[in-house]
Amino acid sequence: MANQDEHFKKVISHAKEYGYVFPSSEIYDGLSAVYDYGQNGVELKKNIRDYWWKAMVQMNENIVGIDAAIFMHPTTWKASGHVDAFNDPLIDNKDSKRRYRADVLIEDYVAKIEAKIDKEITKAKKRFGESFDEEQFVATNGRVIGYKEKAEAIIKRMAASLEKEDLADVKSLIEELGIADPETGSKNWTDVKQFNLMFGTKLGASADSAMDLYLRPETAQGIFANFTNVQKTGRMKIPFGIAQTGKAFRNEIVARQFIFRMREFEQMEMQFFIKPGTQLKWYEHWKEARLKWHLSLGLGEENYRFHDHEKLAHYADAASDIEFKFPFGFKELEGIHSRTDFDLGKHEEFSGKKMQYFDPEENKSYVPYVLETSIGLDRMFLAVFSNSLQEETLENDTTRTVLKIPAVLAPTKAAILPLVKKDGLPEIARQIVEDLKWDFMVTYDEKDAVGRRYRRQDAAGTPFCITVDHQTKEDHTVTIRHRDTMEQKRVAISELGAIIKEEVDVRNWLNKM
Amino acid sequence: MANQDEHFKKVISHAKEYGYVFPSSEIYDGLSAVYDYGQNGVELKKNIRDYWWKAMVQMNENIVGIDAAIFMHPTTWKASGHVDAFNDPLIDNKDSKRRYRADVLIEDYVAKIEAKIDKEITKAKKRFGESFDEEQFVATNGRVIGYKEKAEAIIKRMAASLEKEDLADVKSLIEELGIADPETGSKNWTDVKQFNLMFGTKLGASADSAMDLYLRPETAQGIFANFTNVQKTGRMKIPFGIAQTGKAFRNEIVARQFIFRMREFEQMEMQFFIKPGTQLKWYEHWKEARLKWHLSLGLGEENYRFHDHEKLAHYADAASDIEFKFPFGFKELEGIHSRTDFDLGKHEEFSGKKMQYFDPEENKSYVPYVLETSIGLDRMFLAVFSNSLQEETLENDTTRTVLKIPAVLAPTKAAILPLVKKDGLPEIARQIVEDLKWDFMVTYDEKDAVGRRYRRQDAAGTPFCITVDHQTKEDHTVTIRHRDTMEQKRVAISELGAIIKEEVDVRNWLNKM
Repeated sequence: MANQDEHFKKVISHAKEYGYVFPSSEIYDGLSAVYDYGQNGVELKKNIRDYWWKAMVQMNENIVGIDAAIFMHPTTWKASGHVDAFNDPLIDNKDSKRRYRADVLIEDYVAKIEAKIDKEITKAKKRFGESFDEEQFVATNGRVIGYKEKAEAIIKRMAASLEKEDLADVKSLIEELGIADPETGSKNWTDVKQFNLMFGTKLGASADSAMDLYLRPETAQGIFANFTNVQKTGRMKIPFGIAQTGKAFRNEIVARQFIFRMREFEQMEMQFFIKPGTQLKWYEHWKEARLKWHLSLGLGEENYRFHDHEKLAHYADAASDIEFKFPFGFKELEGIHSRTDFDLGKHEEFSGKKMQYFDPEENKSYVPYVLETSIGLDRMFLAVFSNSLQEETLENDTTRTVLKIPAVLAPTKAAILPLVKKDGLPEIARQIVEDLKWDFMVTYDEKDAVGRRYRRQDAAGTPFCITVDHQTKEDHTVTIRHRDTMEQKRVAISELGAIIKEEVDVRNWLNKM
Repeated sequence: MANQDEHFKKVISHAKEYGYVFPSSEIYDGLSAVYDYGQNGVELKKNIRDYWWKAMVQMNENIVGIDAAIFMHPTTWKASGHVDAFNDPLIDNKDSKRRYRADVLIEDYVAKIEAKIDKEITKAKKRFGESFDEEQFVATNGRVIGYKEKAEAIIKRMAASLEKEDLADVKSLIEELGIADPETGSKNWTDVKQFNLMFGTKLGASADSAMDLYLRPETAQGIFANFTNVQKTGRMKIPFGIAQTGKAFRNEIVARQFIFRMREFEQMEMQFFIKPGTQLKWYEHWKEARLKWHLSLGLGEENYRFHDHEKLAHYADAASDIEFKFPFGFKELEGIHSRTDFDLGKHEEFSGKKMQYFDPEENKSYVPYVLETSIGLDRMFLAVFSNSLQEETLENDTTRTVLKIPAVLAPTKAAILPLVKKDGLPEIARQIVEDLKWDFMVTYDEKDAVGRRYRRQDAAGTPFCITVDHQTKEDHTVTIRHRDTMEQKRVAISELGAIIKEEVDVRNWLNKM
């Protein structure tokens, strides 16, 4: 746990130091849970987005894209259920005037119980050494069983109370457990109230005509609202998908964990429209297809797992998360949801417009079922970035910090370095930049000793360093150094384009799917 | 004028019919001045964005990108002047309760006077025929001179009153001219008031801690706020630029002209940081460079002109627009502004943080000057789309509708068509799709007679149709048909990739700069 925390801190500081992620409005002391992407971050984000778009839209004849606006007609959010049900249960401390998510207070309490279990295990491990059987210990140790039962009972009661909107019982639970304001220790709580997470604004200037708008809390509704337009003008036949990337906004009360949970974030979603009754087949199909996409990047199969939901959202009949091992543990990276005909049906109800598809094979019209794949672009960024940041101990016992971002996603593909700043080497290096930049993001770097420049490019995530030395003037060769292996090869300048393309080409990476 | 209107209507309906632009939330009867991009629109928009990014960021070693959030600390907008000065003068009609921009009411009045001048010219042209000298007529005809003087006097008085914030005089002007509510004819007006165009929202849930936020009205401030972070972590040396694309929001009162002026829109901006005193050199440089970028797309040199500003914004010491000939006349497409040290200086003042650059050549620190290039992505979309939509009369006196989008920007690069739906031709066509889709957006189309499919792809803007016929089975050749010339050539299937790449490769288009 300490190691995890330390790694996560390193991720955050490295992201800033190397121009990946800056706190938003830092000169004004920041804006909580909002971040800006720097000169390297913008390229990584763009490359992830393009990698997704290519795999989903370009490679699939029956999936097309759209780009719907953030602003939508407010009735959209009545139909989708967000006006009524997109809430967090909040509680205020009367003394400190601080506001908390009631469920998070309780979950944090439970986490402390679980920490005690971990402590018992660690103690027992020390005591029994090699012969320790953790599974057996957990199943038989009285103290551990007591902790586990208590934790489970609390979570179960909270879930049941939230489910039936019994907020009074959520408050009782907090009081019975003696949960105090984590900042001040006060136990003087208000009632629990539901708070809607959508950001509101007003469109239009006239008091009469001003319209209450929301910033969309998810991109999916932009796809549903355009279902008929896309299906008809694109002559799409079921099964077909509509994909979209774009910003969404949630007024999170407890926004934490860096770019994992932000108030402004970007989603990459695909809604796949299918014949009712075929949803389980497509659910399995997309679970597998999406996991393959993740695995193609080579971040390590052991870092992914499925988490099938037991408790389903009101619109779903099956749901699973692809979880990734973030610095703070396994957490949701992508969701695959069988949304049934809930959304299209609701839009039909609220708009009075048909949201149906005429199926020529069945010779009848129906509201299609929907299979959704939804991934947070910022979470994907964090998955790639945190997984890639590594400290390596080298043969000579020095360490190096290296950012092993998959070459297809790396912001800068190659750095061109003249060995020295004289003898015409910079001119040759610049000419290589001029030639390569048409096809790749490349950079020129002449400052400091070449070893230091290698380290700098390693830390920035650049897969290739190309060094121009005196031999280059004789035979038009350079050395090309691989970031991950640190191996250097002597190659002809004329080969560089092909060598880099081989390693960074989207085609070669997607082919691993 | 009538032709222009008709063409513009055609642009709007074609954009919908072919999946380029849909009215937002159409099932809920739309949301004024907000639009969604459909399956073809999203690709055209993406291709324009990428074409700009490649030209600005990838090709320029001293320009890097960022992606700042839409949410920024509210003090940002105090510093930038938007809280105090980003206003429109509004007037309400007391009878109809309708609200208008006072300046637009007056400009519409002036437009009517100018229409009278046009009418006089048309009449005189008819009368004098071949020998008519328009310039001389305008300079000497008493009636025309009277109209011109009246129009100029009105505009001059309005500009002066707005300049000195004399809103009472703006109202007097409306009353003196007898301007009526265009919807109802009523002349019963309220006073003129300033209305801020920023959309507001609230961050955080607690009444105590909620923060008033704005949706950014321009992307530029995200660049300025990150100036120091990018300069330091990217080791940038002046002169250097920071580029960004992203959404901005303005609560326009009179939003019209389709996607030309929207409440939610996307900008592509680059701020170039320079040594004070060098701004005029860079102003000329970027005017030329940006025009070249536009011309590289081949939409016709005659459709662009510079409009140098006489009246400058509070932050500028020189400003020019690149205007494009839209269906409704020449209008701003891109702005090139010399913004001086206004923005960085203001952020220094409001944040108390240094926004300076240490210049190693001068051996001193200073607040850099800024040269901005700012283009509306949606406007660029409209420029490309409206210019490309053409009706052609063919040799056999039929007409065809063709969307001559530059091939580098076209959403779908090629459609693969089996001549008939049997004899194994669909299988061959599908195999070609499978091969080409790795490198290009392609589509498969087997419905209707092939001539009709050609017309459909012409209207959708697809540069190439590739037809698989019975000969293909014999010799592995297909016909490739060019959208613009309608010429067809017989080529080997194995050559297709290279032929398409030659025509759509960004490199070849940017090379025309």
